[in-house]
Amino acid sequence: VVGPVDSRLVAFHPDPVSSVEQAAPRRVDARLLKGFRDATPEIEVVRRDFLARLERVAQSFGYLPIETPALEYAEILLAKAGGEAQKQMYRFRDHGDRDVALRFDLTVPFARFMAVHARELPMPFKRYQSGKAWRGENPQKGRYREFVQFDADVVGSDSAVSDFETLLMAAQCAAALELGDFRILVSHRGIITQLLAQTGASAHLAPIMRVIDKAGSLSENELQVALSEHADAESLAAVLALLDAGRGGGTAAAVLARIRSVVGEGDGVARLQQLAELAADHEPLASALTIDPSIMRGLDYYTGVVFETALVQLPQVGSIGAGGRYDDLVGLYSSERLPGVGMSVGLDRIVHALADEGRLPQPGLGADLLVFCMSEALASDYQRLANQFRAAGVRTDVYPDARKLKAQFAYAERVRIPLGLFYGEDEQATGRLQIKELVGRKEHANLTPAEALSLTQRLLATT
Amino acid sequence: VVGPVDSRLVAFHPDPVSSVEQAAPRRVDARLLKGFRDATPEIEVVRRDFLARLERVAQSFGYLPIETPALEYAEILLAKAGGEAQKQMYRFRDHGDRDVALRFDLTVPFARFMAVHARELPMPFKRYQSGKAWRGENPQKGRYREFVQFDADVVGSDSAVSDFETLLMAAQCAAALELGDFRILVSHRGIITQLLAQTGASAHLAPIMRVIDKAGSLSENELQVALSEHADAESLAAVLALLDAGRGGGTAAAVLARIRSVVGEGDGVARLQQLAELAADHEPLASALTIDPSIMRGLDYYTGVVFETALVQLPQVGSIGAGGRYDDLVGLYSSERLPGVGMSVGLDRIVHALADEGRLPQPGLGADLLVFCMSEALASDYQRLANQFRAAGVRTDVYPDARKLKAQFAYAERVRIPLGLFYGEDEQATGRLQIKELVGRKEHANLTPAEALSLTQRLLATT
Repeated sequence: VVGPVDSRLVAFHPDPVSSVEQAAPRRVDARLLKGFRDATPEIEVVRRDFLARLERVAQSFGYLPIETPALEYAEILLAKAGGEAQKQMYRFRDHGDRDVALRFDLTVPFARFMAVHARELPMPFKRYQSGKAWRGENPQKGRYREFVQFDADVVGSDSAVSDFETLLMAAQCAAALELGDFRILVSHRGIITQLLAQTGASAHLAPIMRVIDKAGSLSENELQVALSEHADAESLAAVLALLDAGRGGGTAAAVLARIRSVVGEGDGVARLQQLAELAADHEPLASALTIDPSIMRGLDYYTGVVFETALVQLPQVGSIGAGGRYDDLVGLYSSERLPGVGMSVGLDRIVHALADEGRLPQPGLGADLLVFCMSEALASDYQRLANQFRAAGVRTDVYPDARKLKAQFAYAERVRIPLGLFYGEDEQATGRLQIKELVGRKEHANLTPAEALSLTQRLLATT
Repeated sequence: VVGPVDSRLVAFHPDPVSSVEQAAPRRVDARLLKGFRDATPEIEVVRRDFLARLERVAQSFGYLPIETPALEYAEILLAKAGGEAQKQMYRFRDHGDRDVALRFDLTVPFARFMAVHARELPMPFKRYQSGKAWRGENPQKGRYREFVQFDADVVGSDSAVSDFETLLMAAQCAAALELGDFRILVSHRGIITQLLAQTGASAHLAPIMRVIDKAGSLSENELQVALSEHADAESLAAVLALLDAGRGGGTAAAVLARIRSVVGEGDGVARLQQLAELAADHEPLASALTIDPSIMRGLDYYTGVVFETALVQLPQVGSIGAGGRYDDLVGLYSSERLPGVGMSVGLDRIVHALADEGRLPQPGLGADLLVFCMSEALASDYQRLANQFRAAGVRTDVYPDARKLKAQFAYAERVRIPLGLFYGEDEQATGRLQIKELVGRKEHANLTPAEALSLTQRLLATT
């Protein structure tokens, strides 16, 4: 049963029903919340296209779709939220006075999902999911308070083979977006853990990892100062040596040899070695794979392999995707131990960064063909013609009003519709119609509907 | 700038950062909020398939996609929310102490979107959109507090041609779901408005419409009692006569003739007449179109044509879609007048009703083909083989661990994967492999990879 309405709400509209019926037409300012934005068709067609490409990759690997609610009990999300995520969470009391919050990623609700459903699911469970998440962070370039995320994970497998599959998929996802060359920067949490155990600084692991995670935005000097706050002299030297090992370039084997010379043998290095071998000649992964011991992935739930995908020609876009292995996803919610490995892509970050760079793809927004309205008396014929084209896979829009042709052409141009179909009272007498190429204004007159359709298909195939 | 954190939140986790680092592994109950549910793959593949079908229809008509935020200023949503929607709204104060709420449908945020963007959009603007909305209503069979909605609208056209196109699309959407026969029940708000003006009861229009809207769940006697609360004797008789006019069956022309005998000529009847004529021999609309003067569509923003889509063989699913014309969508947010007409489909309602009826379609959940793991040493070969199949459009899953074949077969069955590929140390010597039909257990041995691929494509095409 829904609890009583929050008293603040009652105060705000004391008698909702009668207030609606008597509503005076008060004007409301049509403003958006700060940090939120609309997706106009120009943005949304690209976001949908990118998302469809990512989903097709996940489907091609046989991953299964799921969905979880946007709202959860706050304690569920808090259990796995880092300090930042906790502060940024949209959290409130619902009608039943429950302490609830909007999800801030897709992974934490997925952990809760696994705790509830593990027994009824195939195992290993390979899932993909896409949807919105919310963080009340300070809006800045490329960061919004609402964002669409694409995730893919394998749960219930400890195997390096699953790490390998995740990296393969991350590479195919990056390639599918066709944004130029990319690197997949890979490390393993075990390496820094092992290194600080050797120097006796395990207690300072978390803050040191946090500094390393931000190393890219610090000068060498700033990095040393920041590390010194948490690391003794020996640990500082060890961490700097580790970061140096990542900088020399060369093959994965060469970088791993340098890392070994700092930290010695260990599970982390061994797993990375194995992955580098598995990836050999698996393009596009093989060329993109770059061992980089500075990759930490914040203070998330990761425990093993961690990685980030970066665009070579568009470094300003930053990381377009990331992921890693976690050895205990559902532990806080269940007595089962369910290891997993997965990846995330931040769709909005990519789309808006491309928009800011003026590099947003410019596909058609809607139809392939516009049926111009020469006479409203022909409306039924227009829809009949249009349906023949639609049934053959041609997206066909019918202009609804007999407005000036200039207005109809402007509409077609605005929607980026390449072809027009013209059929007026004259054509009705003969049953013939005209197709016009709207950019070049080339006309093809006196066509039967069947001829018009095959011409349209030919013209669309060549553009 | 994000404002201070809500004091209740601070009290709840006094020091988020340090509490994370010291976190004792406290167990959290993995429960879902009441009225919310997870979509497991069985549900999600069907919901995605249905949504894709609806979106393909909208795309085939040349409609453009948009998206708006899930969160808006509460006053934006309140401006167009009926009394029920107001009470059910998820409304709270955000980090910046803004009065915000989750959208309760896609239409009201769309109105706000139009007020902001009208000048930069093509006009008429034909848009489709799908996404979640939230209402804290009392959970009951088939009703959830979070639901996925699909909407399509034409804004900026008063024309009957746009009403007609919307009905065509509603019919094609219903047909695309392949849920058997359906009816599109159509009326016009002008008819009841005109009738009550004639009896001098215009002041009681809203409550009388509300009763008529619920007429389907009332006995004749209950209906009369409920109407009598708001209608004088003359109005009561007139309303009952109007409802009777809808009950006699027959063609649209016959029903419209009976409605005319009650209310006379008017814009509402004339528009319905025009639509019935436009729809003639446009299947599947022509057979589904049913004039029904009891259709009211609640007290929403509709002002003209209103309609609902109902399944004939699955009446228990109720209305699967609905829509209508509104003559002033953005009036509360803008000085412009933007008339429009549109439709909504409630995806979750349909999917969960089918699940409750045991009629949920049972497509494969993931891959078409499973590469069985005979040896983990072959992991790289498995992914190489799999990629050849994926590139040819075969969704191919690789089992990650060399577990017992029985477990791997159980996995394939659980995911409903029809085909298996077997390649072990023996096959490695010859380069030949085996495809197995997992249901009939029929084996096809000694195949080259190319033969295996073409066999797989043949087998998938015939199932």
